[in-house]
Amino acid sequence: MRATLIYGAGDVRVEDVPDPTIRAATDAVVRVLRSCVCGSDLWPYGSRTATEHGDRIGHEFLGVVTDVGADVVGLARGDVVVAPFAFADNTCEFCREGLHTSCPDGGFWGSQDTDGGQGEAVRVPLADGTLVKLPIEADSTDSALLASLLTLSDVYATGHHCAVTAGVSGRTTVTVIGDGAVGLCAVLAARRLGAERIILMGRHTARTDIGRRFGATDVVAERGAEGAALVRELTGGAGTHAVLECVGLEPALRTALAVVRAGGTVSRVGVPQYDSARMDRGTFLRNITLTGGVAPARAYIEELLPGILDGSVEPGLVFDRAVSLDDVPTGYREMADRTALKVIITP
Amino acid sequence: MRATLIYGAGDVRVEDVPDPTIRAATDAVVRVLRSCVCGSDLWPYGSRTATEHGDRIGHEFLGVVTDVGADVVGLARGDVVVAPFAFADNTCEFCREGLHTSCPDGGFWGSQDTDGGQGEAVRVPLADGTLVKLPIEADSTDSALLASLLTLSDVYATGHHCAVTAGVSGRTTVTVIGDGAVGLCAVLAARRLGAERIILMGRHTARTDIGRRFGATDVVAERGAEGAALVRELTGGAGTHAVLECVGLEPALRTALAVVRAGGTVSRVGVPQYDSARMDRGTFLRNITLTGGVAPARAYIEELLPGILDGSVEPGLVFDRAVSLDDVPTGYREMADRTALKVIITP
Repeated sequence: MRATLIYGAGDVRVEDVPDPTIRAATDAVVRVLRSCVCGSDLWPYGSRTATEHGDRIGHEFLGVVTDVGADVVGLARGDVVVAPFAFADNTCEFCREGLHTSCPDGGFWGSQDTDGGQGEAVRVPLADGTLVKLPIEADSTDSALLASLLTLSDVYATGHHCAVTAGVSGRTTVTVIGDGAVGLCAVLAARRLGAERIILMGRHTARTDIGRRFGATDVVAERGAEGAALVRELTGGAGTHAVLECVGLEPALRTALAVVRAGGTVSRVGVPQYDSARMDRGTFLRNITLTGGVAPARAYIEELLPGILDGSVEPGLVFDRAVSLDDVPTGYREMADRTALKVIITP
Repeated sequence: MRATLIYGAGDVRVEDVPDPTIRAATDAVVRVLRSCVCGSDLWPYGSRTATEHGDRIGHEFLGVVTDVGADVVGLARGDVVVAPFAFADNTCEFCREGLHTSCPDGGFWGSQDTDGGQGEAVRVPLADGTLVKLPIEADSTDSALLASLLTLSDVYATGHHCAVTAGVSGRTTVTVIGDGAVGLCAVLAARRLGAERIILMGRHTARTDIGRRFGATDVVAERGAEGAALVRELTGGAGTHAVLECVGLEPALRTALAVVRAGGTVSRVGVPQYDSARMDRGTFLRNITLTGGVAPARAYIEELLPGILDGSVEPGLVFDRAVSLDDVPTGYREMADRTALKVIITP
């Protein structure tokens, strides 16, 4: 089959790789219907050291089960399923606490001898625990629905994790930092959790327009100290109870700490490109909480699925570009150049 | 009257100061029955730059109302009251959210032209909001009860804040770092909130013995990497859900991040003597939360009071040394030398 490999910064190739097969009795094989490129794929795309052997890449996919191991009980050939961006057994103590990303038997796609999501098919370890069956047909042509369902793999679940860990509710004001796919999904998730005042910090109008559609009540295009001052001005000087940091860069974290209200929470879901956070005496006196982390997407899929199926939310709007598998390198380039917000792949 | 002033590092004096009087209609004057020296008083005692004019000091006291301003409605002369370590109006939006330490009209004792607690009397701003009436007589001679009630000013409320913000409950395992008065009170608070497994990290046996009495199930005397390894060993390698960091020094925070379980929370209530926390990709992948801050003691007094009155908790056991007001300099020295755990003052 064909699949995407990354060989180094700026060097993504689609090549022939061995077809996936069942290796363990708990495996399934999934033929990919939709996958996509993630903002976090851009970190290795931007900086990976070149190697002769590429690594498989891609961690978001939705597809049809084509084979199952002897111990798989909850899935059958023909089922349409979505995979979270980490596989997990869904039975260990961490999974039972909703922290599937810390499952000792789990792991991430494209590492530990697993396939990446950006290919024609994927061998799925721990299939019963990992995959969630979707109530749609394998030959569905509803591209908008498939796109929204695909966001359960990562960006919508990640935005939701950010809002949940930040304690967003009907009583909290919210700032979302970042107008990437995760930031926009964080707006959607905050609105879904009841937030009525959602300030989106982002400077790409096409993206912040989606943010407004998702529930943002205010958009602040300015960055840094100027942007923070504007958010405080919008909130009577106090800042917001919850700040959803969806970028991962140190300046975004600094802005987050500058706009969070006393007693409030900064949640971060962008993979941190920094080692330490300024949690000094000032943040101590203001009782600021720093939370978040890699989202246990698996924990949230059942909760988020009904709203997508009934059309009350449409997170798939974050995809503004579709490519074939062979065009994945173009998709990476466009996302890196910020000409595409998020690229969906139809193998 | 006599009151304590700090002139510089190691230089605390008890001197004559003007008697407090009502200045604002919302003031009360309180004659101090008990006050004490706090671990946080040791920071200026250790490092304050010497000045010619001393600053009033002390922020924990319990006493009898001797005068009230015209607008004070909830208190009368003769009432026995306890003061939290910050005064506040108890009506603003921050106070209503339980964050009295961020009350815009509030402040800290000994600053902003207010009296310190380590004196014969204190003018209390915003008396109705600040003071909590206690159901005891002004001539009570129950020293043990007075000592426990005094901990509502700070250390018991602070330990409780640490446990609450860390999410301690019957389902969480707990590590407490620090065997000072706040650490021991954090043990007590964690036990009260239902924690069944509480590991106390401290190396002073006399103190950790109080910790065991307060509910610690394990004591780890080792520090640093060695201590962290022992805590992980005690918890099957995983660490504890909640870590209550009651020291404020960077090594304690490092230990906290080393013993917290994936998905867990580090709460810090020791005034941070550092500017940044290592919240790197490792903590992100483990979904670690860093929370806590200066405790809004006022928010907790009504909740914590009944357990003291009915004898089910005895936080006053943290006081192992009593001095008269004139002997306060000795009390500071003994606490700084670690020969006293916490010093109570009877003016």
